[in-house]
Amino acid sequence: MSKFLAHEYQSLVPYTPGEQPKDRTYVKLNTNESPFPPSPRVLQVLNRQKIEGLNLYSDPTLSELRGAIAKALDVKAENVFCANGSDDVLAFCIMGFCGRGGSLACPDVSYSFYPVFADLFGVQLTTVPLRENYTVCPEDYSHIGKNIVIANPNAPTGLCLPPEDIERIAASNPDHVVIIDEAYVDFAPWSCVPLTEKYPNLIVTQTFSKSRSLAGLRVGYAIAHPALIDDLNRLRCSFNPYNVNALSIAAASAAIADADYYADCVRAIINEREKTKVRLADMRFAMLDSQTNFVFAKHPRMDARTLYQGLRDRGVLVRHFAAPRIDGWLRISIGNQQQMDAFFAALEELL
Amino acid sequence: MSKFLAHEYQSLVPYTPGEQPKDRTYVKLNTNESPFPPSPRVLQVLNRQKIEGLNLYSDPTLSELRGAIAKALDVKAENVFCANGSDDVLAFCIMGFCGRGGSLACPDVSYSFYPVFADLFGVQLTTVPLRENYTVCPEDYSHIGKNIVIANPNAPTGLCLPPEDIERIAASNPDHVVIIDEAYVDFAPWSCVPLTEKYPNLIVTQTFSKSRSLAGLRVGYAIAHPALIDDLNRLRCSFNPYNVNALSIAAASAAIADADYYADCVRAIINEREKTKVRLADMRFAMLDSQTNFVFAKHPRMDARTLYQGLRDRGVLVRHFAAPRIDGWLRISIGNQQQMDAFFAALEELL
Repeated sequence: MSKFLAHEYQSLVPYTPGEQPKDRTYVKLNTNESPFPPSPRVLQVLNRQKIEGLNLYSDPTLSELRGAIAKALDVKAENVFCANGSDDVLAFCIMGFCGRGGSLACPDVSYSFYPVFADLFGVQLTTVPLRENYTVCPEDYSHIGKNIVIANPNAPTGLCLPPEDIERIAASNPDHVVIIDEAYVDFAPWSCVPLTEKYPNLIVTQTFSKSRSLAGLRVGYAIAHPALIDDLNRLRCSFNPYNVNALSIAAASAAIADADYYADCVRAIINEREKTKVRLADMRFAMLDSQTNFVFAKHPRMDARTLYQGLRDRGVLVRHFAAPRIDGWLRISIGNQQQMDAFFAALEELL
Repeated sequence: MSKFLAHEYQSLVPYTPGEQPKDRTYVKLNTNESPFPPSPRVLQVLNRQKIEGLNLYSDPTLSELRGAIAKALDVKAENVFCANGSDDVLAFCIMGFCGRGGSLACPDVSYSFYPVFADLFGVQLTTVPLRENYTVCPEDYSHIGKNIVIANPNAPTGLCLPPEDIERIAASNPDHVVIIDEAYVDFAPWSCVPLTEKYPNLIVTQTFSKSRSLAGLRVGYAIAHPALIDDLNRLRCSFNPYNVNALSIAAASAAIADADYYADCVRAIINEREKTKVRLADMRFAMLDSQTNFVFAKHPRMDARTLYQGLRDRGVLVRHFAAPRIDGWLRISIGNQQQMDAFFAALEELL
């Protein structure tokens, strides 16, 4: 640390992304990426003409992308905020709506970036314990009188609350924003996007990084009341108005229009997930009821850290969190059949 | 504005990017883009394989890009910080090193984003008037006891201080950072990058958006002492660790290695700039001595707003700033010969 860093950031501990070792090729089941390439339409739009036109700035109003997302989600463009990945979206939401000295409540076991955002922006974080069975207890957030962020489906548990529970949370906290992080929503049975029309304090964030096979391109978005979207754009345009680049705009706009392609990918991943659950159960793993593209699993005998390391030694990366309540568990992204076979081969060797 | 926006952002006025109207095709000389396409090597690396691999996250350590920049600038990778355009770089610098309630000094006529950053991050801004002739007076910053940001060459004036002046500023403010924004440095005779080895408080920022024809791709970087780079990465990884996407990493790494191609582009632009100066002088424009890819010019008779509007009506966009001291001037980006001919044809019609 230099002597120049402002005091408020001196104890900041950054988010730790999933490892991306370069020493060898791994079967990568640790960051919940899709095993499928993006829609062929993405290849079509990222063509020679588009690349030769990169000398010009991208559109800071993001109108093409906002329009494409609005059309796909059956909302209006004025309900759509876009940014450089959903981390960027979440950062602006927490910065702008919590504010320095403001409040934020989130589950104790959830996306580990939320506490980092709170620390970065000087927000008072309240962590609300999940139930013993790792489900979110909606009553805990009823009239809590704080801003709220809940990943739904939650990560790393994979569990999902029904929209009526989210609705009660939003309705009982009309003076605070409720951010529902739907990064994994396309693998789940429902979304809270339709609720944003009714609740002016509800923000639903989604991403192109999981179901849409564009993690490397960094596009995320929020759906909310136009007044909230305007606020987010005020912050974005005061920080980095060109934060979504020209190739990301073109690719994401093309991708979200190709619903059929991605529906097939999602079906294949869910199918593989259900097969994975059966195979893990056969090996005596306990599991939570995943509504995502990963499973969260615990072996009754071998500890998770040992399993993680053993798999890594055999060329398979999964995610282990050395954190309270979940250090006995592994989060395993669902890959394609070949990747899952490699995972199970390594696992069988280990057990 | 919603009722949820934190009070500290309620009076925030975002940066105004140069207009990008979509009603017709314009000769675009308003945002200092390069008229040339990116290096052919960019086309080579943004290939089918790279696009099909976008299902995987980009490298959050940015090691390929940092290495390529370090090699091109003859520094070490540990001296290089990369982000999503140089606005992103500047945002992290001002956020991190000024801090809330901290100080920042900059010229009164400069990049109009600096005051927005100061407002966004709660920094006390001191604007230091340029001399009557629009040059930065280095003595004004001597022992000023504040963090400093100076665009060098400055925009929209196009004027450039020699490195010895910057060195005196850095040496006389050892307890504050001095940020030198070198967005236009490739059109100028010198850079302050070599000084970063000597001054642990000096940060030099550069961009791929101007000389390297990649404005649409959003890549900027800072060169500084490793301790400062670590601080910037701590903030970046607490805000958006994947802020430079996989295509930007690949394209910028390829671009910066193609020094010959870009040297030719820069030579052509400087050549066109000098021709433009002569033609504008023939039309009785006053001009500052531009060391950039734009000229800042003032007509003795016709006011700048009228000229701007007349050019716009004729399909040529230039930039006019309705701001104190410079509202009599136009900033005209240097395009290719055809674009400049179109500009002069419209101008002759007007005058």
